[in-house]
Amino acid sequence: MTEIADALDVGLAHRTELSPLSFLQRSEFVYPDKVAVVHEDRRYTYREMGERVRRLASALLGAGLEKGDRVAFIAPNVPALLEAHYGVPAAGGVLVPINYRLNREEVQFILEHSGSRFVFVDHEFEELLGGEKLERRVRIDDTGHPDDPYEEFLAEGSTDSLPRKLEDEAEPISINYTSGTTGRPKGAVYHYRGAYLNALGEVIETQLMPSSVYLWTLPMFHCNGWCFTWAVTAVGGRHVCLRKVDPGRIWELFDAEGITHYNGAPTVQASLLDHENAHKLDRAVITTVSGSPPTAELFGRLTKIGIRPIHVYGATELYGPYMICERQEGWNELPADEQARLLGRQGVHYVIAEPVRVVDQQGEEVAADGQAMGEVLMRGNNVMTGYFEDPEQTKETLAGGWYHSGDLAVRHSDGYIELRDRKKDIIVSGGENIPTIEVENAVSEHPAVAAAAVVSMPDEKWGERPKAFVELIDGEQASEEEILAFAKERLPGYMRPAAVEIAELPRTSTGKIQKKELRDREWEGRERQIG
Amino acid sequence: MTEIADALDVGLAHRTELSPLSFLQRSEFVYPDKVAVVHEDRRYTYREMGERVRRLASALLGAGLEKGDRVAFIAPNVPALLEAHYGVPAAGGVLVPINYRLNREEVQFILEHSGSRFVFVDHEFEELLGGEKLERRVRIDDTGHPDDPYEEFLAEGSTDSLPRKLEDEAEPISINYTSGTTGRPKGAVYHYRGAYLNALGEVIETQLMPSSVYLWTLPMFHCNGWCFTWAVTAVGGRHVCLRKVDPGRIWELFDAEGITHYNGAPTVQASLLDHENAHKLDRAVITTVSGSPPTAELFGRLTKIGIRPIHVYGATELYGPYMICERQEGWNELPADEQARLLGRQGVHYVIAEPVRVVDQQGEEVAADGQAMGEVLMRGNNVMTGYFEDPEQTKETLAGGWYHSGDLAVRHSDGYIELRDRKKDIIVSGGENIPTIEVENAVSEHPAVAAAAVVSMPDEKWGERPKAFVELIDGEQASEEEILAFAKERLPGYMRPAAVEIAELPRTSTGKIQKKELRDREWEGRERQIG
Repeated sequence: MTEIADALDVGLAHRTELSPLSFLQRSEFVYPDKVAVVHEDRRYTYREMGERVRRLASALLGAGLEKGDRVAFIAPNVPALLEAHYGVPAAGGVLVPINYRLNREEVQFILEHSGSRFVFVDHEFEELLGGEKLERRVRIDDTGHPDDPYEEFLAEGSTDSLPRKLEDEAEPISINYTSGTTGRPKGAVYHYRGAYLNALGEVIETQLMPSSVYLWTLPMFHCNGWCFTWAVTAVGGRHVCLRKVDPGRIWELFDAEGITHYNGAPTVQASLLDHENAHKLDRAVITTVSGSPPTAELFGRLTKIGIRPIHVYGATELYGPYMICERQEGWNELPADEQARLLGRQGVHYVIAEPVRVVDQQGEEVAADGQAMGEVLMRGNNVMTGYFEDPEQTKETLAGGWYHSGDLAVRHSDGYIELRDRKKDIIVSGGENIPTIEVENAVSEHPAVAAAAVVSMPDEKWGERPKAFVELIDGEQASEEEILAFAKERLPGYMRPAAVEIAELPRTSTGKIQKKELRDREWEGRERQIG
Repeated sequence: MTEIADALDVGLAHRTELSPLSFLQRSEFVYPDKVAVVHEDRRYTYREMGERVRRLASALLGAGLEKGDRVAFIAPNVPALLEAHYGVPAAGGVLVPINYRLNREEVQFILEHSGSRFVFVDHEFEELLGGEKLERRVRIDDTGHPDDPYEEFLAEGSTDSLPRKLEDEAEPISINYTSGTTGRPKGAVYHYRGAYLNALGEVIETQLMPSSVYLWTLPMFHCNGWCFTWAVTAVGGRHVCLRKVDPGRIWELFDAEGITHYNGAPTVQASLLDHENAHKLDRAVITTVSGSPPTAELFGRLTKIGIRPIHVYGATELYGPYMICERQEGWNELPADEQARLLGRQGVHYVIAEPVRVVDQQGEEVAADGQAMGEVLMRGNNVMTGYFEDPEQTKETLAGGWYHSGDLAVRHSDGYIELRDRKKDIIVSGGENIPTIEVENAVSEHPAVAAAAVVSMPDEKWGERPKAFVELIDGEQASEEEILAFAKERLPGYMRPAAVEIAELPRTSTGKIQKKELRDREWEGRERQIG
C-alpha cells in the first residue's frame, strides 16, 4: 500500500527528495523582483540571486567539478558565501565553509583533510592560504564589480537552469569543521534532508516570514549560519550581509533596513546594548542568544528596547541549535530574576528534532531533579552523518546511534535541561562532582575579574580539587588571596577552589580558552590527569 | 560518505522517520499544563490529550487492532476525532475519517471499500450505519462523561507509552475518501512523511505559533483538516472544537477564546460577516479561504474587521491546500478591486511543495499569458501515494508520475495560476474553449440569480454550445429570456449561452452541484456527449 504508484509503474508522484535548494527555486519564482540580498551599496533581487547561483554552479562544472567534490570558502558574511550555499550543491559539490579566525595551519589542515579541489577566498584572508594543491583558487574582492575575480568566475557560467537532480536526500551538502579547543578540527557532514528540516525548524522557532529582514551577525561559516542561509530564503525573507560585527554599523542597518531578526552570543548582544546609538525599536525584533546563557541583566536590557531574546543551544555536529528554551504561559508575569533563571536554561528540543537524553555513566536517564548530572545525547535528522574521513572519532561520538555532546547537564522537574559543564572539564573531588562552570561563575563575580578558567589540580587527600586561573580587568587590582576568599564565600565547601592564580589565559585562534593547556600544566609529570 | 554511521555499524544517529505523532509527543513534553483542546465546557491540557491518545491507541490494540488495519471515524469536529489523528496511527492503524454529510449508501461503500474493522460514530450520525461487518463499533456521545461509550472505550486503554515505533515514513497514516460529483468515492492514501511536511507547511504559510488559537470551522474529515490536526499541535497551539458551523457560536468563541486562526469557504466567511454579532477584532486573525475564489467585496469586508484572508487551493489527493496566493510587496497599496483580482488567483506552490505544471493536451507547459488553458499537474511529498485498492483510477490520476488535478487553469505572466474550469466541464464550441465558470460568473451577476450551472448542449453548427441552468433567489422574479440577454451583454460572442433554463439544480448529499446530471439530460440518446 505504501508504494502503490511504484507497483503500478506510473512513476513516483508522491516523493521528491528534500533539498534546501528548492527554497531558492521557489523564492526566485514567487518573488523575482523582491530584494533578497543587501550588502553595502549592492542589492540583489531573488531573480538576480538565482541567476548568480546558477552562474556559480555552471562555472564550477565548467572548471571541472565532479559530483561530491569539496569546494572551500574562506569569507566573512558576504553575498559570495551566501551564494555558495546554493551554487556549490547545485553543481553537485559539497560546501566546506572555513572559519577565517583559524590560523594558517588550521586552515591548511582543513583544506587538505577535506580534499578541497576549489577554494574561494576573501581578499582579507588570502594570507591564510599557502601552497595548497588546488584545481582552482578564486579571490573574492567583495566589490561586485566585473573586475572582481569572483565576478569574473561567475561570468564564466551561465544563468540557464542546471541539469542536475538530487538523487538522494541523504547525500552530503556541506562539511562544517569544528574549532574545538583540543585536537585537530573534525569535519561534521550535513545531508540535504537535515539541512532542509533544520531550516524549516529555524523558520518555525524564530517565526520567520516573508516580511522578515535577517541581519547576518552570526558567521555563515558556523554550521552554515545555523541553516539560516537556507531558512531566510525559504520564506522569501531578506538577507542583510555584514563583513564584521561592528555595533555602530549594526545600529545603522537596524534603522536603515528594518531588521527583524539576528543571532548573537551574549558578548555580541552586550556590545550592541552598550553602543552609543542603542535605542528603543519601534517594531518587534527577535534575536537568538547562544554560546553561553544570557544573564538576567541582558534579558532585561534587550526586552526594554524591543528585542525579544530566544535562548538556544546546539553544536557544529547538530546543524546549529538543537534546543530552545520555549517560554511558558505566565513566565512574563514572574520577577525579572526568576524569568532570567528559567530562560537561561538550554530547554527542550526543536519542533523538528527528537527528544534528548541526559544519561549517567551507566547510560541511564538521570532523575529530573535539577541535581543529577548526565551527558546530553541527541539523535535525529539534524544530527551529522559523521565526521568526514575520521571513522575513529565518528565511532566514538555517535556510539550506539546517539550523538554524544560531551556536555553535562541536569534535567529540571519541568523537563528542561540546563548545562553544568563540559564532560572533560568536570572535577571529581572526594567523590563529589564539581562543575567548573559554577566555580568560574562564582570567581567571575569579583569586580576585578575579567575572565576565569577552573581546572583540576592534584590533591593528596581529595584526589583532585579545583584551581582557578583568572585574568584581571585592565587597571583593576586584586590579590590571589582576596579572590580566593571571595570565591569561598560564595560556594559550598566541596566546590571551593584550592588555589587562585592570576595569569594570562591561553586561547585558541578563535578566542576560546584552552583549559586543557592549564590542566596539563597542573598535572605535568603524572601518568593520569585524574586524582 | 552519506551513510558513515551505517558503515561503521554505530547505528543511525542521523535518521529518524518523519511522523506527525512526534508533534504531540513534543507538545505534551514541553507544554504539559497548557490547554490543548477546548470543547464546550471541557478543556484538556496537552498532558491530558497525550494520555487520552495513548488510552485510545492501547484500547485499539487491546481490541485486536493489527498493523495497517483501517479505523473509521464518523464525527464532527469533536475531541474524539482530533484524538483519532494520533491514537489510531500510534496503534499502527490507518485512520479513515468519513464525511458525515454523505448519505447512508456512500458511507456504507466507504466502510466496505476501506475494509474498516473498527468504526467510531458520533451519536448524531448513527443512522448512517447499517449491518456492517465490524470488529467493534463505538458510539461517541461527545459528553466527556465516564458513561459516554467513547470514554468507556478509552478506559479500556492505558496511559503508558506505546511500544510501537514507525518503521518507514512512507507507511500510510490515513485514507481520505473523495466526495466527487461523479462516480463512487475514491480513497486517497496519505503517508506519514507527507502528513508531517504538510503540517509544517501549514504552520509556515499561516504563521501558526505557540500562542495561536485555532477554531475548527473546517471539517477534520476533510483531508485530515488540511493537516491542521497535526499543525496546531506542532507549535503547541490550542484547538477549539466546534460541532457545526454556527456563526453566532463562532462569534462567541472568537471573543471568549481569543481565536487567531480559522479556515473557511467564501460561504462560511459570508455567514460570519452577515451575523448580527460581527464586529471589529482587536487582534490579527488569519483565515484561509478556499473552495471558490473570494470576491473583492469579501476581501474588503474581512480586512475591515481585522481578519486577514489567505487564498489557498488544493484537493483531497493533496493533503489539503497545495497552492497559496502569496501577497507581493506593494499589493496593499493597489485599489481594492485590483487587489481582489490578484488575490483571487490560486497562486503558487506551498513552501514545502514542488512547482506545479500547467500543460496542454500535448503535455507541453502553456504560455504564461493569462489566456492559454491547461491542466494543473502536481508532484511531491504532499501528493497522495495513490487511491486505496483502486489501481485503475490510480494509474489514470498519477499517470507519468504526476497528479492530474482535472482542473484547467491559465498561468499569468507573474507565474501565478488561475483556475478556469474543471477539465470535464469545459465546452469546445467551433474550436474555441469555453470555460463554464466564466459563463456561470456572468449569469450569476444577475440580481435575481442565486446559483448557476453551465453545461454543454448539442448544436448542429458549432458542435456544442453552453446552456445555463439557474436557480432564482427566493422571492425574486426574472424570465429566461431576460437572463439570457443579460449574460449575452457580458460575454464575448463565442461564450454566450445558447439557452437559459430556470430549474432546481441537482446536488450531491454534500451540496455540490451535479453538472454531470444536467449534461446527461441535454445529451440523452446520443452516443457521445461531445459535439
